[in-house]
Formats: sequence, structure tokens, C-alpha cells
Amino acid sequence: MSNESTTQEQEQNGDAERTSEQLVELAKRRGYFFQSSGAYGGVGGFYTFGPQGASLKSNVEDAWRDRFALEEGNMEIDAPTIMPEPVFEASGHLEGFDDMLVECSECGESHRADHIVEDNTDFEDAESLPIPEVEEVIAEHELVCPSCGAGLAGEAVEAFNLMFATNIGPGDSQPGYLRPETAQGIFVEFPRLKEYARNTLPFGVTQIGRAYRNEISPRRSIIRTREFTQAELEYFIDPEEDEPDLSAVEDVGVRLYPVTEQNAEDGNEIETTIGDAVAKGVITDPWVAYFLGIAQEWYDSIGVDMDRFRFRQHLSGERAHYASDCWDAESEIDRNWIEIAGFAHRGDYDLSKHAEHSGDRFTIFKQYDEPKTVERATVDPDMSYLGPEFGGDAQAVVEELEALAGRDRSAFDDEPVEIELEGESHEIPVEKTGFAVEEQTEAGEHVVPNVIEPSFGVDRVVYTVLHHAYREDEVAGEERTYLELEPEVAPTFAGVFPLQNDDELEAQADDIASELREAGLSATYDDSGNIGRRYRRQDEVGTPFCVTVDYETIENEETTVTVRERDSTDQKRLPVDGLAETLVALREGNVAFSELEGE
Amino acid sequence: MSNESTTQEQEQNGDAERTSEQLVELAKRRGYFFQSSGAYGGVGGFYTFGPQGASLKSNVEDAWRDRFALEEGNMEIDAPTIMPEPVFEASGHLEGFDDMLVECSECGESHRADHIVEDNTDFEDAESLPIPEVEEVIAEHELVCPSCGAGLAGEAVEAFNLMFATNIGPGDSQPGYLRPETAQGIFVEFPRLKEYARNTLPFGVTQIGRAYRNEISPRRSIIRTREFTQAELEYFIDPEEDEPDLSAVEDVGVRLYPVTEQNAEDGNEIETTIGDAVAKGVITDPWVAYFLGIAQEWYDSIGVDMDRFRFRQHLSGERAHYASDCWDAESEIDRNWIEIAGFAHRGDYDLSKHAEHSGDRFTIFKQYDEPKTVERATVDPDMSYLGPEFGGDAQAVVEELEALAGRDRSAFDDEPVEIELEGESHEIPVEKTGFAVEEQTEAGEHVVPNVIEPSFGVDRVVYTVLHHAYREDEVAGEERTYLELEPEVAPTFAGVFPLQNDDELEAQADDIASELREAGLSATYDDSGNIGRRYRRQDEVGTPFCVTVDYETIENEETTVTVRERDSTDQKRLPVDGLAETLVALREGNVAFSELEGE
Repeated sequence: MSNESTTQEQEQNGDAERTSEQLVELAKRRGYFFQSSGAYGGVGGFYTFGPQGASLKSNVEDAWRDRFALEEGNMEIDAPTIMPEPVFEASGHLEGFDDMLVECSECGESHRADHIVEDNTDFEDAESLPIPEVEEVIAEHELVCPSCGAGLAGEAVEAFNLMFATNIGPGDSQPGYLRPETAQGIFVEFPRLKEYARNTLPFGVTQIGRAYRNEISPRRSIIRTREFTQAELEYFIDPEEDEPDLSAVEDVGVRLYPVTEQNAEDGNEIETTIGDAVAKGVITDPWVAYFLGIAQEWYDSIGVDMDRFRFRQHLSGERAHYASDCWDAESEIDRNWIEIAGFAHRGDYDLSKHAEHSGDRFTIFKQYDEPKTVERATVDPDMSYLGPEFGGDAQAVVEELEALAGRDRSAFDDEPVEIELEGESHEIPVEKTGFAVEEQTEAGEHVVPNVIEPSFGVDRVVYTVLHHAYREDEVAGEERTYLELEPEVAPTFAGVFPLQNDDELEAQADDIASELREAGLSATYDDSGNIGRRYRRQDEVGTPFCVTVDYETIENEETTVTVRERDSTDQKRLPVDGLAETLVALREGNVAFSELEGE
Repeated sequence: MSNESTTQEQEQNGDAERTSEQLVELAKRRGYFFQSSGAYGGVGGFYTFGPQGASLKSNVEDAWRDRFALEEGNMEIDAPTIMPEPVFEASGHLEGFDDMLVECSECGESHRADHIVEDNTDFEDAESLPIPEVEEVIAEHELVCPSCGAGLAGEAVEAFNLMFATNIGPGDSQPGYLRPETAQGIFVEFPRLKEYARNTLPFGVTQIGRAYRNEISPRRSIIRTREFTQAELEYFIDPEEDEPDLSAVEDVGVRLYPVTEQNAEDGNEIETTIGDAVAKGVITDPWVAYFLGIAQEWYDSIGVDMDRFRFRQHLSGERAHYASDCWDAESEIDRNWIEIAGFAHRGDYDLSKHAEHSGDRFTIFKQYDEPKTVERATVDPDMSYLGPEFGGDAQAVVEELEALAGRDRSAFDDEPVEIELEGESHEIPVEKTGFAVEEQTEAGEHVVPNVIEPSFGVDRVVYTVLHHAYREDEVAGEERTYLELEPEVAPTFAGVFPLQNDDELEAQADDIASELREAGLSATYDDSGNIGRRYRRQDEVGTPFCVTVDYETIENEETTVTVRERDSTDQKRLPVDGLAETLVALREGNVAFSELEGE
């Protein structure tokens, strides 16, 4: 269950805040994202990705799929977002997926009680306090409503379930919920998915899709929304046998912020490698370490600023009781650390819970190298004795005898055997129980797999990538804003312009745009407004290169165009012949723009 | 509002039914799709796409995006699936998006009353009957519950709203609904989207995403589900100026089933071309014709059997009142025609409704070629007269005078001017109204765009593609099942196998799989089970080619492999050198397998 806020979140301030403000304004103006249903005043926590944002988000998802599904050989599924109640009874979400709600009786606004406490007292992890204590703290500190300033002492704090509820079919006989994480769509289907994996561990299943949390106070643009996209991998392992290939990631450098450092008064982040961190026990689980290593490289590849990125270990209060080790990926946004992914060893919690609640089998049959012979105690009760003796309870007696044989075979050493049935003690002669110890040959055993879960918040990654790419500089005395996006995720790789409105220039530019597209580059043709305005537009959406067709292009013997690099604003004349190859080389990083020959 | 059932749907029967049964079984076994939450008994109308299905679905979506967004130059957005109530008040879904529900008081099952009527009487379009009439028909015909056989006469038929309802935030003060179509996420954002289109018509906006309908009786696997994926294009045009480029589609052959033929006793489908159909007025709207032409070619390209495909015009009773022309794409599944897309000219209905309900501007400002001078009647009432005379009603009088000047300037020819206010007549001296007729220069006008909507049901396309690809034949005396999927949408293009478990064979096969992937082909490595079983597995998931590495591969001077074609099961030995290029050529259709040189 990732995507939650951390106690590290602090209020924004000063200059840092400005970047987010500017970014949100640019995002709206240029089609990255904006609050939905603005014509109706908007609704907190719902955002629409415009053309640029939808493309960036889709590129981030594709990059994630390439790395975490295809390259790792995991399978991807696509499950519904509405799931029936029994799923969430089993997963624990129905009972425990709550936030603390306090409603101001003065202005009617709802707030998170734990946030009010954390923002105004020394408590750092108010979420872990019991509700009565939170009410006491509010009263003692005379805390007030952040909206209207009225005192909140005496207001009831309630547990508010964050799942969106609905009804499936007519009436209310079948409650359903919008999934609060994509993971459950994988866990519940384990009995079938294991077949696709040919009943062999380890295997991984990914899903990229919507998840929903009815946040009490959604905030910070697309960082904390009520509807968001997750990319999750559930990796199923045999806890006794499977080991990750740590050699693939041992040299990856990471910045870690382990519990020990968080608890130390002068604690600091540690710069280390995955290999060292495992060797020194900083990361206790090798599977978690493996995925941290892969994630580090992946975030780097899509343009997260590695100077504003770290992995933070969960404090014991934050960690789910079943999770043996848990780390968050965090990015720095306006001097605050924001959780953008969670990496947890979930043990066998999820599969065991679904097995228990559904009665279905959530195990893998593991064949022994050689069949094993084991002793097993069995009973074969004499029903002609039990029937008359116990009447309607005879079947219950049989079941109790079977259970006793499995539990404590020494009980059959006594004569008579004593059993308990609904609190009452009964005696049965040993000979009537048919007790025996038999040798059985077993080909294997049913193993409940453990789960390692890397869980990514896609919207938060998108926000981080945009925020870390946001730049302001001055070009020829004019202020300029641009996004230094990585070519892999930028919505457009090249803008192609005719210098002026002229049929010949336009036709040539159109041809070039088509050629670039055929070479697999996303290219946009634009002939609207003066050339400076078109450059500024592409700078603001983060297009790495612009190609301009001018009169020199069509008049000279060798057809050439002007290519402009976004970050340096340098321009070079390059031949049209081979242009696509040159741009592909720039995209792949095989050549730098400054190294290109050209005027 | 597409994806509805048609009156053409009939019960399945005989042989035809068998294909669907076999397909659904194969889909479950091979990871295409299966009912969700099976461990908890499943819930009607919710399906999970397994690894193969998720891949096929994603390939279909990509193919749609290529054709309807990228190639057409339309922009794609990504909006939330939960939307607030005012959106659906405006769209009409809150009031009118109902099905007729009848509940059996004997067994408690809910049914669609109109389906019961259609299935058991001569009524063909019971959905268009008023509810009391449906109740009468049920009583008169003594119709019974399809589940338990109890009589339904006397049971109340109710209008059941198909939207899934939920609450946004704590309490129930802000109702929200899961969108019943992706379209509303585009319409409500028109005021912003038009900015991204630089306020110029025509432009199109696409969205691929989840939509939800709380069907009373979901049925037929992924054909009628409660949660599904739509791919919709909303194309905004200036109704007075914009014309489609029909030359691009005029020669496209189509099979049409127009209203006239549906109503004629011996009516038939017509084989024609888009150009002819427009010329003869069979398709009345040229924009609808344009998109039918594109859709025809697109369906063909992804593997829909064109002998089992047609466009059917909506009968007047089916058509929404605002839609001037509406056609469905239909595919034949088990001898039934299933709607898989809808193409509607929606006029200005959607934008006008949202303008009216939100008070926001859903128009495009259209500049005139030259500014126009128009006469406009204005008033400038004398408040020093109106104030004392009308007191608190003075402002209302001003507004009524303004309205009157716009409506009927001749009213100001009389002395005094008569106005009506809340049913009462009042007289005002003309001189006190400040009436004047002025010449004004206008640069342009605010136009409400019309909308053409091609709306595709992705799940139904996936089902059709699978159903039309399903084949059974006999190979070497053994029955074989395979899917003749188009390479563009097949989850895997090539299976790569080592003939036996042997390190050298395995390494070579692994290398070849990597090479194919680098060439942009999706390749699967498989070394489990005997080679015949691996072929059958790939046949059943529809993999067009299999590559087998054997001892000849590694022993001979020229490295060669066996390549097997799925449909013919023919095999050829081909050199590894150039294999990727050969397979790419096969994929693109530049060469046929039978033409390849090889042993």
C-alpha cells in the first residue's frame, strides 16, 4: 500500500514553492495537466492530463513496462478497477484502510486530524496514535480549524475509510469498491496466474492502471489525488529457495536513509552501493535490494535528478505489521521529500489472507528432488460405535479425532482417548478410533509464495520528472522557460517549422516531419506564429530539438536545415540527407549536439 | 452513447455457439481473459485480461491511436473516470441513462424487462415503450422469470440508472459517478482544449480509457460487461464551413444496412463504396461517411473478418433525439450481429448543454474575413426614474428592457413601452428607456461547434478479433486449435525454442530471441515441454511464427534454424544471418512465407 504521505513532508516555503507554482501554471497553459471539470468549479483531487501530459505519462508507463515487465520477463495483466467486498475483507482494507477525520462544526470543512496535530505540535507520526489520544492532543493544544480558525477541541475524530464505495447491480446487496491499489487485482487471481507461470516460482506479475483513494484533503496538484495511476509488480518467490541475481545491481550507487540514521540525532543519508548496503545489513532483504537497484537506474534514465532522490527506510511505526522490510523512493520537490514508490517484502500475508477468506488454494506445489517418506498419524473411527454413542455429534467427533491425530499423536497412547467437544470432555476407547501411524510417500509440498512488491505512483513520477526538468534562463536578453526532459519521455522529440508561410517551405517541412516519424521519432509540424514564438512553445513543452526550413534550404544545392538544441539554444545547419539518422543518434546519446559538424 | 445492445441481438444457437464456448475456454486457459475474482465466486460483468489478453488489447489500442489520433492529427487526453454530479445533470445521464428493471419476487433475480418482452413477444424495440406499457405487455403475455419460471405479471417495472454512484470526500454532500462514456471527460474540458487547438476548428480529441455501466444482466463474456474500455474521438467542426476530405475514403468498399432496407420486408444489406453511398444519400452526413471509411479499413487491418462485418444505420427509435445521423459498426459473432462501434453526428447538443449548466463558454470565436458592421438595438434606462417608480424591481425592469430591445425593437415604436414582469404589465415612457439603434463593428462571432463522434468498444473489438481468428484443423492426424491473428495485434510475433534442453542450443535460442526483440519484434523464448507441445501452445495464443534451434544449427557451417508458419504449419530452414530482416518482411507483408527460399 504505497503512495501515502510520509512524516517527512513539510510545508512549502519561499523560492522553492515558486517552481511548483510556475510549473502548475505552465502545465495548464501547455496541456500537461489541470484540475478536471473546471467549468463546474472543479473537484478536489481529480486532474486531467492534456495532450502533452497524456503523452509524457504514457511514455513513462512504457519505460516502466520495458524495464519491470519485459526486461525482467514478468507478465502484465489488466484487471477491473471495481472489486467486490469480500476481496477487501480479506485484504484488510475494509477494516483498516482509514484516515483520521475531524470535521469543523463551525465551517463544515473536513480535515485530517493527524495532519493538524503534526503541523502544530511536536508529534511526528500522529497517524500511529489511537483516536482518543488524538482528540486529547487537539484539546490540550487548543488546535484550530485550518480553514476558519474555530477551535477543534471537543470535535469527534473519526476513522474514515478511504475506499470509494458503490453498489454492483440493482439494490445494495452486492457492495463493491474502487480498488485502492492495483495489487489486489493480481493477488486474487493468483490461482490462475500461477498456471500461466506453469506452476513454477519465482515469477512476477505487473499491472499499470487506475487506483482510487477518497482522500479527506487532496492537495498539491497531482501529488495527492483521489484517482491516480499505479505501476505495480508483485514478484512471487519461494522464501526458502529463491535468491535474486544481485550481481546485476551490486555496483549501482544509491543514497539511503535507513532507520538508524533517521533515529540518530545527527543522522544523515548514506552514499553507498547496493552491494555494500546488503553486505553491511543496511538493506536486510536481498530481493528488496535488487529492486532498489533496478529502480535507481530506471529513475535516472527517465530524468529524475539523482541529487534530489533517495531511498528511505520505513520507521517501525510506518511499516505494515506483515512487511519485514520496506523502503520508499523519495524525490525532493520544493525542499520536501515526496514518496514516489514503495518497495516492500510482504511475506505471505496477501496470499494467506485470500486463501483463508476464499477457501481457494493460493499455493504452488513444489516437487521434491526425490519423493520423501514421512510418518503420518491417521484415524479410521468405528462408526457403528460412534453413531449410537454420539448421535448427531458423531461427525464432529470424527473431525476432532482427525485433528487430534495431526496435532498430538501421544494422546492416543492413553486409554481411553479424551477429546473435547464444545467445551465438554468425552472418552473413546482407542480401539474404536482406528488410530494408526502410516508411512506415506510425498512427491512435494504446497508452498505459500512470499511477495516482493515494488509499487510506483505514476502521477508522482510524472510530476517529479517535470519539476526536476523545469528551468528558467535568459536568451538574448529575454527570459525563457524550458523543460529539460529526457528524449525518452518528452512528448515530442522534434518540432519542424517552415520559416514563413510559403507553400514550398511548408511542403518541405511537412516532408521532413514525415521522414522523422518514419524513423520512429515523434515530430510535430508547426507553422503558426513567428519563429521565436514557435521556439518558445517547444521549449516550454520540453521538445529537445527544432528543425527549421528556410529559403536557404530550398535554394542551395545541398539541401540543409537549421537544427536548434533546446538546452543550449545553439543552432547548426545540417544536411537534410541523413537528418533522421543524426537525430536518432542524438536521441540515443551516441553523439552530442556540440560534436556535430555544421555551420 | 455507444455500446448498447441492438434489437438485432438474438439468442445463440447450435454450432455457432460452440465457437464462443471453445474460445472462452481457450481464453481462460491461455491467458486471454477470464471472469475476475473467481476465488470468491466471481462477479457478473467483470473480466480480467491475462498476459496474452492485456497484450492483444494494448496492441488494438495502439493501432487505434495510430490511426485515429496520430495519423489524423488529433490530440489525446487522459481524464479521470470519476466525475461530479453536475456533469451528468448536464449530459442527461442522471435523468435518462436508464434500463428497465423488473425483479422477480419469487427468486429475487433482477432482469431487463425490455429483454424479456423482446425475447418472448413480437415486440422488436421494447426499450422505446413507456414503462406502463411494458408492464401491460408482461401481464397480457403472462411472461415469466427467466431464472425461476415464476409469473412476472403485476411486478413493478422500474427505471434503473446504469451509472455506478459513489461519494467524493467524507459524507454524501458531493455525489460522484463513474463515467458511462469517456466522451464527457472531453466535452467538459472543451474551454481549455480549444486553447490547445489554438481556437481553430476543426480539431479532434481522443481518449482511450475505462467506462462503466451497471448492467442489470451482464452477459456473453466480455461483450456486455460492467467495466470496459472505450476508444472515443470527439471531432469538433464548424457546421457551416468544415468539410471532410472524402477523396481519401471514397473508394473504400463497405457493406451498409440502412434504415430503408431494415424497414423493407425483403430488405438487404447493400455492397457499395463510401463515395457512392454519399452521392446517393444513403449516408446523409459526409463527416460520418468519412469516419465509416476510415473505420472500415482499420477493422480490416487488425483482423476483423470483413465477411462478418457491416455498418447498420440506427432506426429512428434507437437514435438519440439530438443525433442527426447514426451508424453502428457490427460484427457477426455466432450468427448474431453485435455492435462494436457507433458513429454519430451529435450536433451541438453536448457543448450547448454544458454551456447552459456551467455558465462557461463552450464556443469558438470565429474571425470574419473582414469585420462586419451590424445594427444593434440598445437601451440605457434612466434610473432616476425607474428607481422611485419600481423600487426593488428596478433592476428586473432594466433586464427586461434589454431583452426586449434584442428581441423586438419595434416594441419601442409605441409610447409608452409595455413590458411584462412576473405576469404583470408595466408601462414606461420611451424617453426613459434610452432606446437607440447603434451601428457596431464585429470582428467575428462565437460559434458552438458540432461534434462527430466515432466511439469504439475496445473489449468487443478484442472479442471479435479473437472470435474471427479462431480455427480448428487437423495436423498429422491430430486436432489442432489456433488463432489466425494479424501480426500487428498478436501478443507474440515469434516463439523461439531450443529443440532440447542443451546449454548450447539454449544459448543460441536466447541470442536469437534477443536479436528479434532488438529488431522490434515481440519474441518469446520457451524451452518447456516437447517441441510439439510448444508449437501447440504458440498456435493457441496465435503466434504467427516459431523458430527452432537444433543440432544442425550449431553443427553446420552456415548457421540455420527451422522457421514454422502458424497457419500452414509449413517449415523451412533459414539462415540465422538475416533472420530478423526476413521476419520483419513477413510481418510487414512484403513477402509471403511460401515465397521464401529455404529447404
